[in-house]
This record gives sequence, C-alpha cells and structure tokens, in this order.
Amino acid sequence: MCMIVYDEGWSMDMQRYIVPPEAFRGRTVVVEGDDAFHLSRVMRMRPGDRIVVCDGCGREATAVLTKVAPDRAEAEAEDFRPSAGEPAWTVVIAQSLPKGDKMELIIQKGTEIGAAAFVPFRSERVIVRYDGKQEAKRLERWRRIAKEAAEQAHRGRLPEVSGVASWRELLASFPEYDDVYFCYERQGGEPSAGLRTLVRETMSRIPDRPLKLLVVVGPEGGFTEREAAEAEAAGARPVGLGSRILRTETAALAVLACLMYESGEMGGDG
Amino acid sequence: MCMIVYDEGWSMDMQRYIVPPEAFRGRTVVVEGDDAFHLSRVMRMRPGDRIVVCDGCGREATAVLTKVAPDRAEAEAEDFRPSAGEPAWTVVIAQSLPKGDKMELIIQKGTEIGAAAFVPFRSERVIVRYDGKQEAKRLERWRRIAKEAAEQAHRGRLPEVSGVASWRELLASFPEYDDVYFCYERQGGEPSAGLRTLVRETMSRIPDRPLKLLVVVGPEGGFTEREAAEAEAAGARPVGLGSRILRTETAALAVLACLMYESGEMGGDG
Repeated sequence: MCMIVYDEGWSMDMQRYIVPPEAFRGRTVVVEGDDAFHLSRVMRMRPGDRIVVCDGCGREATAVLTKVAPDRAEAEAEDFRPSAGEPAWTVVIAQSLPKGDKMELIIQKGTEIGAAAFVPFRSERVIVRYDGKQEAKRLERWRRIAKEAAEQAHRGRLPEVSGVASWRELLASFPEYDDVYFCYERQGGEPSAGLRTLVRETMSRIPDRPLKLLVVVGPEGGFTEREAAEAEAAGARPVGLGSRILRTETAALAVLACLMYESGEMGGDG
Repeated sequence: MCMIVYDEGWSMDMQRYIVPPEAFRGRTVVVEGDDAFHLSRVMRMRPGDRIVVCDGCGREATAVLTKVAPDRAEAEAEDFRPSAGEPAWTVVIAQSLPKGDKMELIIQKGTEIGAAAFVPFRSERVIVRYDGKQEAKRLERWRRIAKEAAEQAHRGRLPEVSGVASWRELLASFPEYDDVYFCYERQGGEPSAGLRTLVRETMSRIPDRPLKLLVVVGPEGGFTEREAAEAEAAGARPVGLGSRILRTETAALAVLACLMYESGEMGGDG
C-alpha cells in the first residue's frame, strides 16, 4: 500500500539491481555489465556501500559491496527475503506492434503498474515492419526498459518480454489463462461488455485463487472483424473500456491499472 | 462501453472539431484557425462534406460544410445532441510540475481516460522553473494537447488546463471537492489507506450523486513532510496505490483509470 513518486536515478533508498539468479553463489553476488558500470561510475559506490540485489524471481537481499570495478562488482548478501513488490494476479499484456516508441511506453509504465509479462504480436493492421535484425535490437531494448522499470518500481519479478508472436501463436496461448480480455468494440449487434462486468464474472467463476489473465490490445487501426471472430472462437472475450476512445498504448495501461485495483492491490475489501 | 483503438489522423468515423461555444450562430458553425487549416489542407475537405462539431461544453452536432478556406470554414448543423463521451464523475488532476514532457503525457492520456480538468502546480521539490513567457508558452501547448486529445477521444467537454497554481492556491481549492486524494506514502506510523478503501468511503458518504474528486500528485522528488501535513490539515486524504513505486506521470494516469472503473464507466453493477 505504498507509493513514492520518484525520478530516474533518484531514490529515497538503496539502489536496486536485478541480476540473473545464477549471479548468486551462496551469499556472494556478482554484478556485471551495465549494472557494474552504473554502480561504479554513475553511482560512484565503493566497497562497504550497500545495495539491494534481486534475482528477478521473487527473492532479494541487501548486500555489502566487497569489490567494485567498472565491469564487475561483488557483494555479500546480509539477508535474503521474498520481494514485496509483486501483485497477486498475473496479468500479461499482449500488445499488437504499435508505431514509434509506444511499445517502450507500454513496457515501462506497464512494469511499474504490475504487468507480469509482455507479448508483442503481429496482427493484420500492424504498420511497422521489422526485419530479423531490427526485431532483435528492439527486443533487446524492450527488455532493458523492463529491467530498469522493474528496478525503479521495486518489482520482485522481472517481467518477461517475449519475442514477437504471430497471430496464430497468440491464439494458441489463450488456454494458458483463466480468461482472455480482448479490447474490441463489436461492430453492430450487442456492444462488448464492460471490463468490470467481465472481471467480476471471472472472479465469481474462480473465487479461490489469484487470477491469471491475458489482455489483448490491437494496433492503431484496430483488429479486423475476422481477427475478432477468431479470437472469440479461441475463447477470448471482447471487452469495452467506457465511452471514450483510447489510443492503443493508453488502453493497455488503463486496463492493467483497473485489474490491479480490482484485485485489491490498492486496498478495499474486495 | 465502447473502445476503438486508433491513431493520430486516422479515424473510422467523421472528423471531429471542438470549437468555442460562440462559434455556433444559430445552425451555422464557424471553424477558424488551426482547425480550418486542418480541415481544408490536411483532410482536404470540401463543401458538402460532413464533420462533427462540439462546443466543448457537452453539446455537439453533425454539420455539412458550406464554405471552406484555409483560415475559415462554415458549416450548417443538421442536428444537435448531447455529447456521449463524458464520464459521470468529475475527476480533476492536480499535478506538481514534472520534468521534461511528462505533463504533456499526463494531459494527453488523462484527457483520453476521462479527466475533467488539470491543475498544474508548484510544490517545494519541483525542479523545473519557467519564467512568465515560458509558462505562457507551455500552457498554450498543454491546452492544444488537451483539445487534440479530447477530439480524438470523442470527449464532449474540453478539459480545462489551469494556469500554474501555487501550493497555497491549490490548498485553498480543496473545499470545492467531495474528497481530495493526496498521493503520498506516510513516513513511519500508519501507512496511507489504499485508493479503493478511500473511494468506497467517499461513495458511501455521498451515495446519491456523481462524485467530484481532486487527485493530487507530487513531483519526481515527492512532497515534503510539511506539505503532507498541510494537505491533511486542509482536508486531503493520503492515498496508497499498491506496493510498487510509480513514477509521477504513471501515478496520475493509474488513479484516473481506477476512478473511472470504480464509477462504473467500464460496466459492472457498482
């Protein structure tokens, strides 16, 4: 139930680094690469200074630096504890590739708000085209953004950013979730049910454990009718987000915030 | 209950323009300035084409263009109707001046999600400094962003962006609202109540009409303890947003989305 508003590079408390689980060797933690550079050169830390190291899988420790070099640092963990910053519900954002740097915004803000993972995917009206090299570069950048946002937001788990999925691959993943909410305005006929209506239905169907949900958001031009029919046939539920028209990046973040709210992350008795 | 995801300049339906109420003269609507240029040069519309004109105060009309020039166009309204895109609750975002272009993001996305107005203000830890001329320029830009976002999102009311308020002026405005939620993590003692807890309290206190709420968000460095004490003394309620740490711009948008959700904008029985 806490919120501290803070800025890039500024923090009221200890600097946090998410390191791979294999960086822990007993109580010793090895920090390498960009993190070692940041720690030694940007933060100008020295042996004896304390950091928080998190394995990105829900475990973290306060650790005292023992060696500091620009490419490698070592620290001794003083205590291990479960990370506190993880939401109960698992909410995965499947985002059809948007234009420009919108995916970066979605990943950064979505990580702060509490997304468990991101699945970029291609649908018919996607405009951007990446060749293999460009895609690999983007993916590297998106993963770096997720890591930095997770460290800043004090997440205990590092949200995964998958490689770009095809529409077929995305549809095939639907059975992994308790429910799939598909942001789509039905053309004609009955309008899509509101998000809250659908979430309350899912909650009453599965009252006894935290939910695992997939939120599917289309590109700027929306989904085609055929895609909507295929998604529904694969088990997704079309969802409405109110009477205003949201940009693709706004939709993903608004749904995520509402799901965190509904799951009790911001207080209330449910 | 609808959501269409779309892009700048692209729309499945008629182009919308928010014009000042005085642009309506009987059934005749005059479109001037940037809007006339956009309509004539960017959209290449001609007499006989239809647009939607909205007075930004909740009334709109479909109108047929009768004259089109780059600096001035005229149209005849075919029907007048109340705008459909307005949320029931009035939620005002008071945002302490953030760095860079974050205020633009807050105003753009906040307008889409449903903010009624924005109050930029100065608090102790604000880093940016505008002189009078810079502030006027920013304000002009913020208001243009609000207008464009309102048109895109099909808002019926144009959210006002106030001039930059002082901390004292902000405090003095608190009595205008049913409740003031102050995004702040208490230092020591009892933690701030979660957003949902507070909203449900406000709703049970005022069960018979839509709420009017002010959400107060600090700058990157947060509020000082003195500011928090002054805000509480002026009637604001410190609010927590979950166990992750949100950047200032993310906090404003997440709270707004949750309030729209709680007020029933996204379905559900309340």
